[in-house]
Amino acid sequence: MKRAFKPGTMIYPLPAVMVSCGDEPANYNILTVAWTGTICSDPPMCYVSIRPERHSHGIISRTGEFVLNLTNAALVRATDWCGVKSGRDYNKFREMHLTAEAAQVVKAPLIAESPLNIECQVVEVKPLGSHDMFIARVVAVNAEESLIDKGTGQFQFNHTSPLAYSHGKYFALGEKLGGFGFSVKKRGH
Amino acid sequence: MKRAFKPGTMIYPLPAVMVSCGDEPANYNILTVAWTGTICSDPPMCYVSIRPERHSHGIISRTGEFVLNLTNAALVRATDWCGVKSGRDYNKFREMHLTAEAAQVVKAPLIAESPLNIECQVVEVKPLGSHDMFIARVVAVNAEESLIDKGTGQFQFNHTSPLAYSHGKYFALGEKLGGFGFSVKKRGH
Repeated sequence: MKRAFKPGTMIYPLPAVMVSCGDEPANYNILTVAWTGTICSDPPMCYVSIRPERHSHGIISRTGEFVLNLTNAALVRATDWCGVKSGRDYNKFREMHLTAEAAQVVKAPLIAESPLNIECQVVEVKPLGSHDMFIARVVAVNAEESLIDKGTGQFQFNHTSPLAYSHGKYFALGEKLGGFGFSVKKRGH
Repeated sequence: MKRAFKPGTMIYPLPAVMVSCGDEPANYNILTVAWTGTICSDPPMCYVSIRPERHSHGIISRTGEFVLNLTNAALVRATDWCGVKSGRDYNKFREMHLTAEAAQVVKAPLIAESPLNIECQVVEVKPLGSHDMFIARVVAVNAEESLIDKGTGQFQFNHTSPLAYSHGKYFALGEKLGGFGFSVKKRGH
């Protein structure tokens, strides 16, 4: 049985991503977002939605660049803290003992402690209400070398202990329930 | 140490959502997507990105409506199957023994077996390349009554065994690592 609920945003679980931005060390900042995702595979495109009052909103609007730093269980405290505090009041890299590292293409820094850093260039900013959606192209990806399978060259993403955000809580991933396409595979193959 | 990777879409974990569409039983269909998320909190807005060659793309383009049906561990096989097979070849509700239920606002059906159904109306279709992004307003939400806390009236979303999709695999959520804001709460409070 279903009951009507107030219309709201209840799509979960989502990634909890640390967005790094800025074009020189003095203005580097980190914002945590869950309103992010992939919007196109080819070309690779993604988005982040950010409230205009957030400090990073001004930085990304000016530079047109940001990095999505994926998070894991070891980063859960920094992930939460960077979502709660403002870059107007703190140097978040210093406070959270995170290391800013040069990116390949963009001026925004990578967070070295993140297992995967996705460099993005904004192609459109779409004001929607409480949030502006920054629509971006993925221009480079940086993966933790120790998580790249030496045989296949594949990034072992699910060995990173990815962090999920679901309805107000952070979770580790649990039991593996199947791989894409498992429902149409013949048993034993 | 980081290694450069080919630019690609590596934002995970994501929800694995069954999108239902159609405006009469003869054309009801279900498509599974992970390229979905929240883009604005107020007004509540979301998106799904769909390849133009998918059967549901034509239906949603014509009707301007869809429903996001969140999934859980019990729905993992149906979730995978509806992402692999085409509505041109199968009645997916019948094949997966899913129940189409009338929505509050849209003509597209709810999937009764899903714990939460989000009714959406398209406001813009944005062609991006391999995928078109359907930008939508959330116009109604339907929650499984047994998961609504009788005391607080809150939907116990994380009691639904939400399904996460991460780099080609479906996962249950695992250990809870903290609640939003935990990093700034005083211990014992």
